[in-house]
Amino acid sequence: MTEQSLGVLGGMGPLASAQFMLRLTLLTDAARDQDHIPAVLWSDPRVPDRTAARIAGGEDPLPALLRGIRGLEAAGCGAIAIPCNTAHGWFDAMQAATPLPILHIVDAAEAELLRLGVTPGPIGLMGTAGTLAMRLYQERLAPRGWTCLVPDEAEMTRLVSPGIAEVKANRVAEAYAPLAEAAQLLVARGARAVVLGCTEIPLGIAAGPALPFPVCDTIDGLARAAIGWAGRAASHPM
Amino acid sequence: MTEQSLGVLGGMGPLASAQFMLRLTLLTDAARDQDHIPAVLWSDPRVPDRTAARIAGGEDPLPALLRGIRGLEAAGCGAIAIPCNTAHGWFDAMQAATPLPILHIVDAAEAELLRLGVTPGPIGLMGTAGTLAMRLYQERLAPRGWTCLVPDEAEMTRLVSPGIAEVKANRVAEAYAPLAEAAQLLVARGARAVVLGCTEIPLGIAAGPALPFPVCDTIDGLARAAIGWAGRAASHPM
Repeated sequence: MTEQSLGVLGGMGPLASAQFMLRLTLLTDAARDQDHIPAVLWSDPRVPDRTAARIAGGEDPLPALLRGIRGLEAAGCGAIAIPCNTAHGWFDAMQAATPLPILHIVDAAEAELLRLGVTPGPIGLMGTAGTLAMRLYQERLAPRGWTCLVPDEAEMTRLVSPGIAEVKANRVAEAYAPLAEAAQLLVARGARAVVLGCTEIPLGIAAGPALPFPVCDTIDGLARAAIGWAGRAASHPM
Repeated sequence: MTEQSLGVLGGMGPLASAQFMLRLTLLTDAARDQDHIPAVLWSDPRVPDRTAARIAGGEDPLPALLRGIRGLEAAGCGAIAIPCNTAHGWFDAMQAATPLPILHIVDAAEAELLRLGVTPGPIGLMGTAGTLAMRLYQERLAPRGWTCLVPDEAEMTRLVSPGIAEVKANRVAEAYAPLAEAAQLLVARGARAVVLGCTEIPLGIAAGPALPFPVCDTIDGLARAAIGWAGRAASHPM
């Protein structure tokens, strides 16, 4: 590969990173194979569970994350995208360990909100218990005027965490109902849009009827950030 | 990665290899991230056009294919899958250049036909002009009792080649009609099933109503071969 190639640190989960590769391709304005962005996907689903590490004393995922980064460096990539929101809890440690720029998924989500016409103010945020506990979105977005409404603990236990687990177990259709209900509850509480801040969630939400409010797909957002990094045009929204 | 990891030589085209990663994940029997197959996808869409190389004196793709194989070896993979039928015209040269086993997509297609209940006999074969000119399927499958009916030159020019090009240019929905018509013509001529022997074709065929005869999806076939190589169970067909 060359420095024009994108490194994708994936496998967290593997369906989300495959979907990222699909959307990266579909969102690139291309007429033939050779117009597309060269990429290496390092899909290592064995990375220890990020949420368990952060809130339940589980194994530290950082060594496995750094092994992936070393692999992408060795492959000759010029930048790294990580289609897993929770892994961004280790962003600073990863960025300190590599000279390659890592595209930050929260910045990509903000750009996606703006692209959807949503301006700073109250938004809903769905994510893993780890992402919410680490306040990944809140701390990065508050200085820019965004306020995050999040599911309460009962909603996390009954709706969001089971919905994410369904996608990781390939039961995508079953994930729709709980995830859509959680999003609707955030809108009822004043959110003007809902960030699907775990890359499994867009897969579940896509498995049923479209929601009647803006949703920010963090897979698409990160794909558009990567297309921008590569200096390519994004095609029309699809 | 480790020798239990699958190397995927992709980018030919990039949408087909992303779809391969998606199907590899969905077809694996898994309850959580850590149950899935570790994989590295080397998606280099810059590999010179395989069909142009074989039938129009275009640039030889072998050096680029071997660079990808070196990258997958360096990443520590234990086997290689190539979700591009035409690239298998260089199979012997690639296999001679690496100690890693390369799963052959034609063998995977045959296993998929048998899984669908299709027994040796006349089948339809759609593919790129390069794949047909190289007789990749005919020479490997004839000794096992399969006979391949292929589109004639006019059907290739009017239906199959444009359908494949639509997928490579991200116009997947537009690819359905010409590809479905070409498949139907093969069945009218006596094919008992149709092999979608170019990994762009299943994407186009999936964009419209299901065809009323068995179709062999070479993306799914190769994914099942990889799951078998990894010693995993394939989940129920989906």
